[in-house]
Amino acid sequence: MKRTVIGIHSAREALKINPDSVVEIWLRSDFKKVQDLNFFAVWAEKNRIKVHSREETALNKIAPSHQGVAVFMKDSPTFDLEELDADDQEKVIIMALDEITDPHNVGAILRSAWLMGVKALLVPEHRAGHLTPSVIKVASGGAEHVPMIVVKNLVQDLKYLKDKGFWIFGLAGEGRATLLKTRVHEKIVWVVGSEEKGIRSSVRGVCDELVQIPQTSSEASFNASVASSIALYETVRQHSLLQS
Amino acid sequence: MKRTVIGIHSAREALKINPDSVVEIWLRSDFKKVQDLNFFAVWAEKNRIKVHSREETALNKIAPSHQGVAVFMKDSPTFDLEELDADDQEKVIIMALDEITDPHNVGAILRSAWLMGVKALLVPEHRAGHLTPSVIKVASGGAEHVPMIVVKNLVQDLKYLKDKGFWIFGLAGEGRATLLKTRVHEKIVWVVGSEEKGIRSSVRGVCDELVQIPQTSSEASFNASVASSIALYETVRQHSLLQS
Repeated sequence: MKRTVIGIHSAREALKINPDSVVEIWLRSDFKKVQDLNFFAVWAEKNRIKVHSREETALNKIAPSHQGVAVFMKDSPTFDLEELDADDQEKVIIMALDEITDPHNVGAILRSAWLMGVKALLVPEHRAGHLTPSVIKVASGGAEHVPMIVVKNLVQDLKYLKDKGFWIFGLAGEGRATLLKTRVHEKIVWVVGSEEKGIRSSVRGVCDELVQIPQTSSEASFNASVASSIALYETVRQHSLLQS
Repeated sequence: MKRTVIGIHSAREALKINPDSVVEIWLRSDFKKVQDLNFFAVWAEKNRIKVHSREETALNKIAPSHQGVAVFMKDSPTFDLEELDADDQEKVIIMALDEITDPHNVGAILRSAWLMGVKALLVPEHRAGHLTPSVIKVASGGAEHVPMIVVKNLVQDLKYLKDKGFWIFGLAGEGRATLLKTRVHEKIVWVVGSEEKGIRSSVRGVCDELVQIPQTSSEASFNASVASSIALYETVRQHSLLQS
């Protein structure tokens, strides 16, 4: 999947982790005067990549949060679910975002997913945030590390993972189980829904358990990226106990 | 502290939790046709509060994320640190934000702080996000529940809390202790710094411990609101174990 990486931090991570995917770099016209931007020009020359000087307005058309740089990449990290081996005893964390469209949430989840060692992020083809420039920017480098898999039918893929030995846990404010007392299995898929609608009922149907994070008010809910990150933290915590 | 609450969700929470603080309500001129906005007009009539119909442009001057409503409040939740009793055995969580200016982060922390039962949020007077309309909007109701205390000298207040029996823990990527193996005390203050600069050295000096959240890459860091929320979750988790 082609993509455009904007923002100084995300763009640096892109060059560092996936240098062979870089096709072209756009820099704001004053780049020579800005050390953080000139870095990309120097890198490009060394790696024989084309650099184009662009007006602020041209960069704004990609996304206003560009910070003067846009790196065009010919592909993105990939992962094939068929590589997962049911007999393998490894701990594996996968996340599935059910129709989360807000780029801030999708990007923030990608950032936490990277730092928590998530293997892959599943997102539906429609009504979902994908690897847009804004998402990549907010992910602060996460997009270079965690493969985002766009799936045609999330329910089907979750069932496939179930057959591979994964437990499917949905995060839901009205879940019967509390995260405080839930055993998080070694092979786990965390499903997160949008803040407005939650997880669709068809996707809920595949979940082995609906889990809630403890909260003082039942009428409110955590931000989707915060809830996801807490679930990931609890997963890493329990997995680390298994190790020691 | 006066404040302006924008956004449908936050404004509804304001009327529900702090109705006596409402001074005046502005609604976008088409409010009668929009059920979510007309709700405020009906409430205002019942409670004898002035409603003004305003053009979109007037509301945009407050903050573009207004969603057609702005509620002017004469005060905000307050809390006096002197009320804290050193001999009291209650579990108390306090947060301190050291120069976090990004309204998305401050608002998101306020939202999680509410849902995790935080007693108060300390913020320095200068170079810090306060209760601006954008912060209140992102907090999704949190600003009605968690008092934000603007302090002249954060170091002094942290020392004061230490004398009251509080442990001061700083969240820092380079912390020696990992959250996975850190005992979170019953009376705890979590200090969070900005994503760019971390916690100032003067504030670090007061911390009993610098704690890091486990992460795969040491060169990156969690979003400030995500890190705060994970620390709060771990606190609630350990405190709940004490109860049972």
